[in-house]
Amino acid sequence: MPMHGAMPNSFDPTRVDALEPRARELVTRRRRLLGPGYKLFYEQPIEVVRGEGVHLFDADGNAYLDAYNNVPCVGHCHPHVVEAITRQAGTLNSNTRYLAEPLLDYAERLLATHHDGLGSIMLACSGSEATDLALRIARHASGAKGVVVTANAYHGVTAAAAEVSPSLGANEPLGVHVRTVLPPGPGETDPVAAGDAFALRVEEAIADLHRHGTATAAVLMDTLLSSDGLVPDPPGFLRPVVDAAHAAGALFIADEVQAGFGRTGAAMWGYQRHGIEPDLVTMGKPMGNGVPISGVAARPELLERFGNEVRYFNTFGANSIAVAAATAVLDVIERDDLVAQVGDVGEHLRSGLAGLAREHPALRNVRGAGLYVAADLVDPATGAPDAQATSRVVNGLRERRVLISAAGAAASALKVRPPLPFGHDHADQLLAALADVLADAC
Amino acid sequence: MPMHGAMPNSFDPTRVDALEPRARELVTRRRRLLGPGYKLFYEQPIEVVRGEGVHLFDADGNAYLDAYNNVPCVGHCHPHVVEAITRQAGTLNSNTRYLAEPLLDYAERLLATHHDGLGSIMLACSGSEATDLALRIARHASGAKGVVVTANAYHGVTAAAAEVSPSLGANEPLGVHVRTVLPPGPGETDPVAAGDAFALRVEEAIADLHRHGTATAAVLMDTLLSSDGLVPDPPGFLRPVVDAAHAAGALFIADEVQAGFGRTGAAMWGYQRHGIEPDLVTMGKPMGNGVPISGVAARPELLERFGNEVRYFNTFGANSIAVAAATAVLDVIERDDLVAQVGDVGEHLRSGLAGLAREHPALRNVRGAGLYVAADLVDPATGAPDAQATSRVVNGLRERRVLISAAGAAASALKVRPPLPFGHDHADQLLAALADVLADAC
Repeated sequence: MPMHGAMPNSFDPTRVDALEPRARELVTRRRRLLGPGYKLFYEQPIEVVRGEGVHLFDADGNAYLDAYNNVPCVGHCHPHVVEAITRQAGTLNSNTRYLAEPLLDYAERLLATHHDGLGSIMLACSGSEATDLALRIARHASGAKGVVVTANAYHGVTAAAAEVSPSLGANEPLGVHVRTVLPPGPGETDPVAAGDAFALRVEEAIADLHRHGTATAAVLMDTLLSSDGLVPDPPGFLRPVVDAAHAAGALFIADEVQAGFGRTGAAMWGYQRHGIEPDLVTMGKPMGNGVPISGVAARPELLERFGNEVRYFNTFGANSIAVAAATAVLDVIERDDLVAQVGDVGEHLRSGLAGLAREHPALRNVRGAGLYVAADLVDPATGAPDAQATSRVVNGLRERRVLISAAGAAASALKVRPPLPFGHDHADQLLAALADVLADAC
Repeated sequence: MPMHGAMPNSFDPTRVDALEPRARELVTRRRRLLGPGYKLFYEQPIEVVRGEGVHLFDADGNAYLDAYNNVPCVGHCHPHVVEAITRQAGTLNSNTRYLAEPLLDYAERLLATHHDGLGSIMLACSGSEATDLALRIARHASGAKGVVVTANAYHGVTAAAAEVSPSLGANEPLGVHVRTVLPPGPGETDPVAAGDAFALRVEEAIADLHRHGTATAAVLMDTLLSSDGLVPDPPGFLRPVVDAAHAAGALFIADEVQAGFGRTGAAMWGYQRHGIEPDLVTMGKPMGNGVPISGVAARPELLERFGNEVRYFNTFGANSIAVAAATAVLDVIERDDLVAQVGDVGEHLRSGLAGLAREHPALRNVRGAGLYVAADLVDPATGAPDAQATSRVVNGLRERRVLISAAGAAASALKVRPPLPFGHDHADQLLAALADVLADAC
């Protein structure tokens, strides 16, 4: 089992000599120029040179079915997004110190997809910046420092985001004002019981912060609990957690970097699937189909106070090209009715995976919402997480030109999270390849 | 005089009713959607709809000479950059988990412009993320927390960057491990004397951190000291400061977000003008001509340790489009020999400003390097900073369709920082407009 905090599905750099000459040369140059922090996927890293829809192409022209990348949410190089980027890049790329109607149109349209209490938004470049900004807003509003997150949470890589991201491992210690709570376990079916038990753990964490002299500014959670191994069910379990946060005078921040923009197939936002109304919502990855843009939607009174009292200017945040790309993403999600399609294809995919799990006792606990799907690989005899089998499956799929990855604290979960236009036929291709790999690998 | 930390040259939102109907509507919508934090430039904010070279165009088709924006460093919508963005957006936009040669080519080429000790680089999205990452690297390497910055420094808006940015004002308190030092004053001519005095203040700050039980991880400085009112001279004064940092076991981080990419007209990097060799260098704003990209160049041993021990993945950092745009920026800077041109035009501009200062006793202390130029407006009788006259001049130029801004702790400095292809004719147009405004305003 990999060290807690190690990256699942990463290329092992000590095996560089086993690569083909071209890959070996690129890996070696990369190591020298970018240092060891730049981890690659797969035992045989892929040199990607082109993308189109749900496919990536390598330097030899081979097509890979992309069942992993959520950033190109409407598909790689979607023509409507490419056209928007191209038109805007040739017209103007400026910042928010000047008036620009497209930014206001976008802000209005994006906020209309949120619950009515979220009336204002600030824009930034990355999900990390969104987390960092949301924490600044919450701490400024409350005067408190404490933050409660889940046990294997990931919220970003700025210093402030990293210290609320236990999944980064022991070398990035949690902040002294941070407490973690275990998420609901698998197999929970009653949202009230699961939620109440979860909320109780949150209350205990808040009480522990209080005992250490720290009031709690925010409870911060990914509404799919992605890095905790994906815990989507039962929908509604976050409701008592929000109540617990509010009862303690803390804000609830929904991290929608993973669950947002229709990913769950149930709604535009993961929190809507839980029937909750967060005070702050962070958005990132899929927002601009790969052009860096992120945001924090907020109750207006929070931005009122922060904006009046704190100077915050994000030079690239909401630049003209990013706004054009993000607007085009909303166009495609709406015109192609992607949320409904994602729900439909996701169900088909999970049903196929459940069928495979019935045949393969090593494959268990198929779960997900829409097109974020996970399943665990275990030792069938003991039920223990099996990171090695997971690695064999992920790399076996890669050899069959289907791209997924691994996840979870034990690196034993298959992680399937394709671009949203992934269709039934793509799901069937993935399932067939997986059946083939499982027959070999487990 | 505006409150310390208030933004110079910002539109006063209480005066919204005095605007034309269209601007009033946009400002009102903006206030509602984005909150009060989104400050606009000028008494009459400009609705910008198009950019080309060193010009911005408003909704009525009026052309403004842009003598302020450094982000579009090779000019607004430069065809070579637009072509690179367009081509890449239609081909692939991916992340660094796959092999990609263009990133390596870019990294190699960018590092070749730096001193030989900087052999590796990490990429991010914004200058704030670069500061945040550089501080994480420095603190990880040293195990120390302390940071020394200048008295009115600005290094970004993440929580960790904001707490080393005293220019953000009293509502964003400095970190407990942060100390500030006064920069060299105007009129210093001897780099050794100015540097030694400056280094003494840095040593005192380090000693004070030590007395509080905190070792110093880094001395972090913008190599033009832009937000301290622009202190470019005498070149070399940073040399003893670097020695002082190293003597204390701290790293010297050069913030090149402002001074980098040829801005000074003397070299590609501001630190080269001072003849120093920083341990870490942060880069941002002009790097992608407006496409979000930033970076930290480093001594390889620093990234070696950080990369091996800390998980850091920046989803959008070094995405394919950003790398394409950044590569095109280097192409233009090199092909058009922009650094030399910037030096030449900058000298012409400063000489013209010095001429105006001889005629107008309110205009003093013309300074700068290349195309980053500043001059103070003072009460001629007392020599006191005159923020109101500065505002009149900035807005008078805006009425004459020449865009500059105000800066400095007292908001009494004119700030001129155009795209790099700003020519002699543009400098002459700016000088003529300024002569006209000074005749009216001072």
